[in-house]
Amino acid sequence: MTSRCIIGLDYGTESARGVLIDAETGAQIDSCMYRYRHGVMAQALPGGAALPRGWALQNAQDYTEAATEILTTLGNGREVASIGLGFTASTPMPATADGTPLSQRHPDAPHAYVKLWKHGAAQSYADAINATGGAFLDNFGGKLSGEWLLAKAAQMEAEAPDLWAETDRFIEAGDWLVWQLTGQETRSLAFAAFKAQFDGGYPQGLVPGLQDRLSDPARVGSSGGGLCAAWRQRTGIKGAAIVAVAVIDSHVVLPAIHAVSGGSFVGALGTSAAYLFLSKDFRPLPKGIEGAARDASVRDLWCYEAGQACFGDILAWFVRCFPRGATPAESFEAYGAAAAAMQPGESHLLAVDWWSGNRVPLADSNLSGMLLGMTLQTTAVGIYRALMESLCFGAKFVLDLFEADGFTVDRVVMTSGLAANNPALIQIMADVMERPIEVPQIAHATAVGAAIHGAVAAQIVAGFDAGAAQYGAARVTVFQPDPARAPSYRALYDQYRAVCADAPLRQALKALGHIPRPVGAGLESVD
Amino acid sequence: MTSRCIIGLDYGTESARGVLIDAETGAQIDSCMYRYRHGVMAQALPGGAALPRGWALQNAQDYTEAATEILTTLGNGREVASIGLGFTASTPMPATADGTPLSQRHPDAPHAYVKLWKHGAAQSYADAINATGGAFLDNFGGKLSGEWLLAKAAQMEAEAPDLWAETDRFIEAGDWLVWQLTGQETRSLAFAAFKAQFDGGYPQGLVPGLQDRLSDPARVGSSGGGLCAAWRQRTGIKGAAIVAVAVIDSHVVLPAIHAVSGGSFVGALGTSAAYLFLSKDFRPLPKGIEGAARDASVRDLWCYEAGQACFGDILAWFVRCFPRGATPAESFEAYGAAAAAMQPGESHLLAVDWWSGNRVPLADSNLSGMLLGMTLQTTAVGIYRALMESLCFGAKFVLDLFEADGFTVDRVVMTSGLAANNPALIQIMADVMERPIEVPQIAHATAVGAAIHGAVAAQIVAGFDAGAAQYGAARVTVFQPDPARAPSYRALYDQYRAVCADAPLRQALKALGHIPRPVGAGLESVD
Repeated sequence: MTSRCIIGLDYGTESARGVLIDAETGAQIDSCMYRYRHGVMAQALPGGAALPRGWALQNAQDYTEAATEILTTLGNGREVASIGLGFTASTPMPATADGTPLSQRHPDAPHAYVKLWKHGAAQSYADAINATGGAFLDNFGGKLSGEWLLAKAAQMEAEAPDLWAETDRFIEAGDWLVWQLTGQETRSLAFAAFKAQFDGGYPQGLVPGLQDRLSDPARVGSSGGGLCAAWRQRTGIKGAAIVAVAVIDSHVVLPAIHAVSGGSFVGALGTSAAYLFLSKDFRPLPKGIEGAARDASVRDLWCYEAGQACFGDILAWFVRCFPRGATPAESFEAYGAAAAAMQPGESHLLAVDWWSGNRVPLADSNLSGMLLGMTLQTTAVGIYRALMESLCFGAKFVLDLFEADGFTVDRVVMTSGLAANNPALIQIMADVMERPIEVPQIAHATAVGAAIHGAVAAQIVAGFDAGAAQYGAARVTVFQPDPARAPSYRALYDQYRAVCADAPLRQALKALGHIPRPVGAGLESVD
Repeated sequence: MTSRCIIGLDYGTESARGVLIDAETGAQIDSCMYRYRHGVMAQALPGGAALPRGWALQNAQDYTEAATEILTTLGNGREVASIGLGFTASTPMPATADGTPLSQRHPDAPHAYVKLWKHGAAQSYADAINATGGAFLDNFGGKLSGEWLLAKAAQMEAEAPDLWAETDRFIEAGDWLVWQLTGQETRSLAFAAFKAQFDGGYPQGLVPGLQDRLSDPARVGSSGGGLCAAWRQRTGIKGAAIVAVAVIDSHVVLPAIHAVSGGSFVGALGTSAAYLFLSKDFRPLPKGIEGAARDASVRDLWCYEAGQACFGDILAWFVRCFPRGATPAESFEAYGAAAAAMQPGESHLLAVDWWSGNRVPLADSNLSGMLLGMTLQTTAVGIYRALMESLCFGAKFVLDLFEADGFTVDRVVMTSGLAANNPALIQIMADVMERPIEVPQIAHATAVGAAIHGAVAAQIVAGFDAGAAQYGAARVTVFQPDPARAPSYRALYDQYRAVCADAPLRQALKALGHIPRPVGAGLESVD
């Protein structure tokens, strides 16, 4: 009980998780999870006020409750050298000058709450900013997302001017939590660069008064200060307890899975897929890639962002529509085992993975999924296999965009849910990409990554390389590509690319989104 | 028991059916069915000789056994004025000069047997004939099918020259059966025109010696002679028993469903769909329509042929892949009821009904089915509904080809399995076509149509109009289109046509048929 420890925190959409690590041995000592009391507020506020369609709010109080619970559980009475944290983003909130969330003063005002990353109601403000065509968008595919901080600030300023006037700080929840823990505001370049387009300064003149409500950020791996007295008392934590600046949750994981060098292509395969590519040198964004920033994920590296809008979601959809067992798990098992036994090309099917539209390279959420090649011999398992393959074709498409633009991809690392749980899928991906795929074996990877950020900030390790070596995954499973399968997948991938490039077909998909419904003649209009 | 009767026979692929009708009142008195003892021989001959892939033979003995059984059951002791028969086609066979099937002499020689309509092994001979580009193909879309008589004769002449030398007559099984029943050979223009390209004469010089093995045909509704003494003795039939020349089974039904006038568009909706369009005047074949002949379906009318390669088969495929009940019937009921309750456009899906390739207008069996527009909200029932709609879009496409070429379609009549059993599907078809659809209500329609042909041949009625009035369906269900649904279906159909016209997409579908399979590395090569 006397050894020095480090703590990593992973703030997700529904819950937060913490891990306690022995600073010397790197062993995980303990972990715990806390589910937010208010969860995601999409229908109504706690007081009952209804929310419009597309809204997704959170209550900042949940974050401090989670921190209290987790830090006490893990750290009470312990010598804690550092604390690092990953957080969803862009998840900004309005606060007063002393850090009080505006929702404490105005519990019935929707705009006083945290706007979660998936709050979609600010899209029209993003569209208006995009119409200005500012040069600051060059590193973001020329397009601001409605999920990002600038759009959410614009929405609040326009729709709740009185609350905006009361807002002293408009701040990412991750940065706000560091402020709470340390007693001083320190923003992170992770959020500022990727979600607020900070590049030496924030873009000017887009949202009246926004400049005054922001502050300049520190690069990742910086200290935000030591845990303040109030929190030490609240949690029983002893020691230096240096708190690192916060990091985007999907990026913070990198050192935990040894992705701390240029040339690493990293995929986080969950319900959707996020891809990060690390590069020592800067090149202009390949067409279709979504964003890039330096020092905002791993120090001294550029990190490029991309993704697939739908990943595991597609397999879950299939199992939900066509169950083959009493539970989803049974159906996954039944379909997965049979699909894994099929040969590439055996089904003669091709799926295009656009069930939630396409993120990269088309950035078009109005597209939809396709399944081609059905005959009377087609089987349910064949379709499931084609869906698995389509996920891998989509991933290869992203990787190819980098290589086509002259980047060199040295290694491919896959992590998160489907990387850990679906080896047949990862084998298909290795065969499709014709590359080895590394799947690091580590529990609580995101929280461990956050802990490494803390260790860097507290100078317990010399840097991210050393941190990864000390605390990162001890074992890596490598999936080797089978060259015998390459010709089949090349032939299928060629058709995948051809279908994706078929502009009239994309027009048809978009038209399907807007088929009129019958009106009158005893029929209700539904929509 | 003393009233005068007429008999209709319907020779299908697996069985024959007969119906006995009161010649004066038109009432159906009795019916019966006989399943062929040898069925379809696709794997081996009765003696065990294996058949190559794609072969489909029948044993002519089954046809006379069926006739004996059915005519005896229905006609023994009765005054039978006429007998008519419909038969699958092209289903030709080699016989000696006295009508003996060659298979009686050579039971172990595959080429001595009847080649059923779906015998696919003669396709290369059709291709070779097509390469000559003869003008006789103008009324058949420029293309002979491998299912037709000329191709099957060419195959026999090339592959079994000794048997060909022994063959005195190469004859459709329907014509052969008339020969058996009457004791004299009388061929039908129905088979000769549609399946052997007879147009005043047969095409010359394509198959050595074929001319000598054919004979000139009589138009439909002609007498082939009275039932001969041997068959009267065998069956106990009394009366004139005039036997009409045989007719293609899918055409013989027309008078039974009142489709005996120009401007009638008739669909037979089974596992696949056959469409016939009747016209007083001739116009060159609309692009994509498969064939046309006069006096070969109904007298004094041109009949144009078209079809969908896959119809009810697609719904059966879905239910087989994704059952929702203990039996197919339960699954059809569950999906059908839920799909019928959906609104047009509600699923935002579009299917293209090419599960067995496309017959009209592309005549390309290497195409395959498509499903477009999937999202995470897509349901199994929504897919089933989209499949139903795709069948109707395919039917409308055929109808539009006629109208685009200046034909006037006065009425649409649908018959056979799905017309009788799937009212929700026919309602969608009426809504899609924006026309009333007539579904005649009559049992044993094909056999009744054959009986009307017999009545015309025996001059019991003045012609097909009178025959239809006397013996055709007494009741017709009319499905009225709902104008409120037209805008939705127009929007969907526009996309259906756009997708069908997308040449690069069709190339992708064809490529999917030829994806290479892995070789080596412990994997077997399959295909």
